[in-house]
Amino acid sequence: MKASQFLISTLKEAPADAEVVSHQLMTRAGMIKKLGAGIYNYMPMGLRVIRKVEAIVREEMNRAGAVECAMPVVQPAELWQETGRFEKMGPELLRIQDRHARDFVIQPTSEEVVTDIARQEFRSYKQLPKNLYQIQTKFRDERRPRFGLMRGREFIMKDAYSFDRDPEAAKASYQVMAAAYRRIFDRFGLRYRAVAADSGAIGGDLSEEFQVIAATGEDAIVYCPNSEYAANMEKAEALAPTHARPAATQPQTLTPTPGKATCGEVAELLGVDLSTTVKSLVLATDEVNDQGEIVKSQVWLLLLRGDHDMNEIKVGKVPGLDVGFRFATLSEIEEHFGCKPGYLGPLNMKKPVRIVADREVALMADWICGANQIDHHITGVNWGRDLPEPDLVADIRNVVAGDKSPDGKGELAIERGIEIGHVFYLGTKYSKAMNATFLAEDGKPAFFEMGCYGIGVTRLPAAAIEQNHDERGIIWPDAIAPFTVVICPIGMDRSEEVKAAAEKLYAEFLAAGVDVLLDDRGERPGAMFADWELIGVPHRVVISDRGLKEGQLEYQGRRDTAATKVAVGDVFAHVKERLKV
Amino acid sequence: MKASQFLISTLKEAPADAEVVSHQLMTRAGMIKKLGAGIYNYMPMGLRVIRKVEAIVREEMNRAGAVECAMPVVQPAELWQETGRFEKMGPELLRIQDRHARDFVIQPTSEEVVTDIARQEFRSYKQLPKNLYQIQTKFRDERRPRFGLMRGREFIMKDAYSFDRDPEAAKASYQVMAAAYRRIFDRFGLRYRAVAADSGAIGGDLSEEFQVIAATGEDAIVYCPNSEYAANMEKAEALAPTHARPAATQPQTLTPTPGKATCGEVAELLGVDLSTTVKSLVLATDEVNDQGEIVKSQVWLLLLRGDHDMNEIKVGKVPGLDVGFRFATLSEIEEHFGCKPGYLGPLNMKKPVRIVADREVALMADWICGANQIDHHITGVNWGRDLPEPDLVADIRNVVAGDKSPDGKGELAIERGIEIGHVFYLGTKYSKAMNATFLAEDGKPAFFEMGCYGIGVTRLPAAAIEQNHDERGIIWPDAIAPFTVVICPIGMDRSEEVKAAAEKLYAEFLAAGVDVLLDDRGERPGAMFADWELIGVPHRVVISDRGLKEGQLEYQGRRDTAATKVAVGDVFAHVKERLKV
Repeated sequence: MKASQFLISTLKEAPADAEVVSHQLMTRAGMIKKLGAGIYNYMPMGLRVIRKVEAIVREEMNRAGAVECAMPVVQPAELWQETGRFEKMGPELLRIQDRHARDFVIQPTSEEVVTDIARQEFRSYKQLPKNLYQIQTKFRDERRPRFGLMRGREFIMKDAYSFDRDPEAAKASYQVMAAAYRRIFDRFGLRYRAVAADSGAIGGDLSEEFQVIAATGEDAIVYCPNSEYAANMEKAEALAPTHARPAATQPQTLTPTPGKATCGEVAELLGVDLSTTVKSLVLATDEVNDQGEIVKSQVWLLLLRGDHDMNEIKVGKVPGLDVGFRFATLSEIEEHFGCKPGYLGPLNMKKPVRIVADREVALMADWICGANQIDHHITGVNWGRDLPEPDLVADIRNVVAGDKSPDGKGELAIERGIEIGHVFYLGTKYSKAMNATFLAEDGKPAFFEMGCYGIGVTRLPAAAIEQNHDERGIIWPDAIAPFTVVICPIGMDRSEEVKAAAEKLYAEFLAAGVDVLLDDRGERPGAMFADWELIGVPHRVVISDRGLKEGQLEYQGRRDTAATKVAVGDVFAHVKERLKV
Repeated sequence: MKASQFLISTLKEAPADAEVVSHQLMTRAGMIKKLGAGIYNYMPMGLRVIRKVEAIVREEMNRAGAVECAMPVVQPAELWQETGRFEKMGPELLRIQDRHARDFVIQPTSEEVVTDIARQEFRSYKQLPKNLYQIQTKFRDERRPRFGLMRGREFIMKDAYSFDRDPEAAKASYQVMAAAYRRIFDRFGLRYRAVAADSGAIGGDLSEEFQVIAATGEDAIVYCPNSEYAANMEKAEALAPTHARPAATQPQTLTPTPGKATCGEVAELLGVDLSTTVKSLVLATDEVNDQGEIVKSQVWLLLLRGDHDMNEIKVGKVPGLDVGFRFATLSEIEEHFGCKPGYLGPLNMKKPVRIVADREVALMADWICGANQIDHHITGVNWGRDLPEPDLVADIRNVVAGDKSPDGKGELAIERGIEIGHVFYLGTKYSKAMNATFLAEDGKPAFFEMGCYGIGVTRLPAAAIEQNHDERGIIWPDAIAPFTVVICPIGMDRSEEVKAAAEKLYAEFLAAGVDVLLDDRGERPGAMFADWELIGVPHRVVISDRGLKEGQLEYQGRRDTAATKVAVGDVFAHVKERLKV
């Protein structure tokens, strides 16, 4: 490609609404152009990156035996009503009516449509396994779209769906996909982790997120530096302490803590470590009758160490809380504790509640908690002596750095990540809802065992930039750079020698199948170099009259601090050796 | 590709709602699957064809200097309000509201968005010309979607838009695109014509449709077998006759024609040729005030030879009718002619009307028309003698086969076509509406001169099938076949020799970059052959035990009436020689 035939449009300033570096740099590099909130034009420079991402995904999906199809962007509501998602999903599902006032949705994913295809097409177990995928435009009407392509409303996703005859086969299909994802992410040339994720009601370990490591990531990734263990924060288990509960050494003492309503404030006031305090969280569950009316509510008190945070996913799995919980109302709190929030605790309650202690709290001695009395806490609290053992002990907190790794191989560390892929074993959730069956080997109809597998195609370039950039701009990995090599001739319009050398080298790269751009715009060197550093092309060759006189060109990798002089005849080989595609 | 890793799903019967052969065959061959009215899943077999169409389009667009981008499917209404299309377009424009009740549309085309890009990106004449294109999902909420991919609601279109500094440059850009379209359609391997089309208010000849020739086509294509002349029916000019008007030979005679209200009936009754009759069409134009109220109406009488049809586009260009016309109401007809339709004519009117005679009618003598008296016509009518010369003479009819070609090179012929591409010079229609300007060489802002260029990517396979099929199924041209070559081994599961020969040949084709499928499903020969003839793969190689014993395989091209025996060692060369890709 020659620059004069392309569209290069760089900006000095990022738009005011671009909060994250990938959004800023993609806009400044002319890769995307905002059309509306969360809706972007993919400009030629950006589309090249997207197409390279798609090509890698497509190749590896095909290699893994998945078959590409394309499902409509606009989908009739009927199928979505079969699974109940048409009603259940929030306003992020964009609903439309056509000219005949019939309901449609714009696909955010395609479980319904693909399951509808399967129940018509896959009639016998002999046709299984099958994996159908598409690389297609999606829409989610996010309440607060932001961060450019990171959380847009319209985006491109690769979504794949596997259909199997039984759970074992489905798990095998899942593993094939998980392996394909590793190959895909390896090829992107990004640092990433595959982390165990919560698989909701289905259980088991068959849910993994693929996270691109980036300090700016929205997700916390938990991993063990000494082993393969990695999980997202929702999923990572906080092991039970192995030590026994220490003996009580302090008397239970009502202590004035005027105006100190948080554990941090109390610890500071009392000059103790935050880890000696216990925080009280009050939840409630409701029993509902057939008419959907609440017939009975149960109040729960959750106890966590003051320096720990509640993990809602884990709480949602505690027996009794797994029916769905909510935070208790102020009146429920007053009714049971006789006190307002900030000074709550498990002692001296007005009415009994069910108490769930975090594994850590269950083994504490001489701890501090609210006194159920305004402006007061109790110090020196001890299980058994001052209050009965908790009703339940469970892992209900987020892990923190330094916790023991669940695989016993060291201590956990935490880093930030950006989710760009997810593999998930669905079981029969959709096939049962849509009565999607095949004829099993025993001659009876059986529900498909399904898996779903997503990659955020347009999100990936943003994640790559969050991970790989410097003050000058983007640093693309070779595999997904808009151009792999840029040739920058200086004074091409003045010097026949420069022009000839540039055209010759350009032709050489083209013939070798290298994705090269020749910058024939006639820009001044400074502006030209700044453009390509902003755009992030990984390999640059500069051709100048002065260099040619010495028989040399200059090569500079995007991460190199300085250029390397290379003899004219060696340049092609020199660059080729550095290419990672 | 091996069949066992793919999704092959053929049907014996076409769905009841499939009216045209392409819809029937694409459904039966498992290429598309209906999801809703005018909305289809592109199944793996069909998607392969679509991707090949896309690849050819993309290559040639790039070669022609156009640059690919992608504009959002969901577009904010604001830009569409700037051009007025948000209000003006009918219900085929699918309008949506998001969660904040803001208006959006699903793109049917993207003139507004691309013009918005241009007015921001192309600031100087030095950046021009530019041509941006996308291959993207579109939606038109057709009132009556039908014919499968031929007239769907959701479809894929390649739309390109050129931006130029002046009309001359725009016309050059247009010619570059017209030439690229010829290359594209040549590569598809289809019989097609580029036909001149009406360019509406913009005038000139810069509008061409690319029509795939097919007997089932919706459009009539006019062409001259001796020359390059081709136009669509709307556009094709009916030349003025070169002969002088013959002298009158008959007296004007009121002739009873009881119950004979059409020219055809009258000609039959009187035993004369239909071409001696003249039909009367009554139109009206309205003058409207600022409040949109009709303040005055004008009634028009159009006279056409009995065997000719009115051409609405041509009528819409007649001075006075070019403000927009309608058919006259019954009461307007009674008021001016004192008679009901069926017996109307230009003689003995109650109130004067403006008379437009078709070029042909203006040179007729001794003609027959309605008498403005129920059950009566007048014969022997002559201009000048019986009525004044017409107010206007114009080309207002469709041409018919045998008319003189406008280029003077013979007589016109007519065939049917399916429109799959359109190149169009837009002028400043959109740039003016959206105030899209660039800085011209004289330092002043100037409006972009634009062109737009479409190809119906998903319509093309349907058109290809309408042109190329037989009673057994589809006959794909090599370039867009889902697979170019299919290897059909007979008894692959029983015979090691067959299996080895099949795998060897398969590997050979793959290594040569041929898009080959090995049918390893183990189907019986009859069913297997029927599948591939239905799917329409252009080249088939059959491997059997019996053949191998004689050292031979069988090759059959999809259009061949019988198979050819080919020595095992020669098969690869034999097939390669026949490939057109």
